[in-house]
Amino acid sequence: MKLLEDRILKDGKILEGNVLKVDSFLNHQIDVGLLGKMGAEWKRLFVEEGITKILTIEASGIGIACIAAEHFNVPVVFAKKSKSTNIGADLYRASVESYTHGTVYDVVVSKKYISPEDRILIIDDFLANGNALLGLIDICKAGGCVVAGIGVAIEKAYQGGGDKVRALGYRVESLAKIKEMNEKDGVIFE
Amino acid sequence: MKLLEDRILKDGKILEGNVLKVDSFLNHQIDVGLLGKMGAEWKRLFVEEGITKILTIEASGIGIACIAAEHFNVPVVFAKKSKSTNIGADLYRASVESYTHGTVYDVVVSKKYISPEDRILIIDDFLANGNALLGLIDICKAGGCVVAGIGVAIEKAYQGGGDKVRALGYRVESLAKIKEMNEKDGVIFE
Repeated sequence: MKLLEDRILKDGKILEGNVLKVDSFLNHQIDVGLLGKMGAEWKRLFVEEGITKILTIEASGIGIACIAAEHFNVPVVFAKKSKSTNIGADLYRASVESYTHGTVYDVVVSKKYISPEDRILIIDDFLANGNALLGLIDICKAGGCVVAGIGVAIEKAYQGGGDKVRALGYRVESLAKIKEMNEKDGVIFE
Repeated sequence: MKLLEDRILKDGKILEGNVLKVDSFLNHQIDVGLLGKMGAEWKRLFVEEGITKILTIEASGIGIACIAAEHFNVPVVFAKKSKSTNIGADLYRASVESYTHGTVYDVVVSKKYISPEDRILIIDDFLANGNALLGLIDICKAGGCVVAGIGVAIEKAYQGGGDKVRALGYRVESLAKIKEMNEKDGVIFE
């Protein structure tokens, strides 16, 4: 999606440790107009899939998923990190290793909000090593629902997570796919 | 807002410890159609205020704020809990005591994303004792910007946070204002 690629080239910043900082428009300050166009693009890509629900993960997936969900006219469910006191005990749970923070955390989804009738579109802001996606896929499997597609804003293709998830048979549509990036050459898309 | 009140009566659940669980439509599973109507209502209420940015707090404020921001055609900034490794050192910071979880946490906003030119609308899902709002107000003060309004989905009026914030001179518009609630009588609105 050229609009997102251009925005990354214009406003993204490459930090040490292979971190792409897009917090001026995607995951701290959020350009909701851009999110609307991203949502429309995923709708175009997955229009045939009969999506019944969008699943994402807190925190930075939520805004993207909610605005995408308006295009699909379906609810969002966001997986919560760790167990909150005001969520019931009937939870699907998966462990996720964070590349950015070097930590392991649990994500949980209430059993009430995904079911075998659901055709889920998973949405997230970043796809790097794929661990967060694999956690969400595990939760969908536990709930007996179909993962009908995966929509990612920015895929760091060189980290291999996308290939891993596609090799499992899932359709992953990344709106910006980074082939390589470094402080000298900047961001190069596939 | 009758639509939200009716939904709380229909789908909300009162748990022990004075917790109103609305996770089937507001803060775990999210009804984005409802959020759209809430956003339109805040737009109607704050249309004269020249809002330039919406500020909220992760995680459950983000979806509500993003969809409201589409109505105002302004960006969202969400305050992050604790310091992430991929956010710069130039942060405004405030401490917030969580009523639900009985913990104290820091929220941070990058200094780049609020400025003295901003007229901020603060949006959050719940207003109970007001601590999260007071943290966000402190951050706005530190950034020199005007808090032009505060939009809350559900205010637990009996916990006093709304009165406290209004007494400071802020305009708080809660779409559902709970006078009292208990397991026997259910939820009673003002």
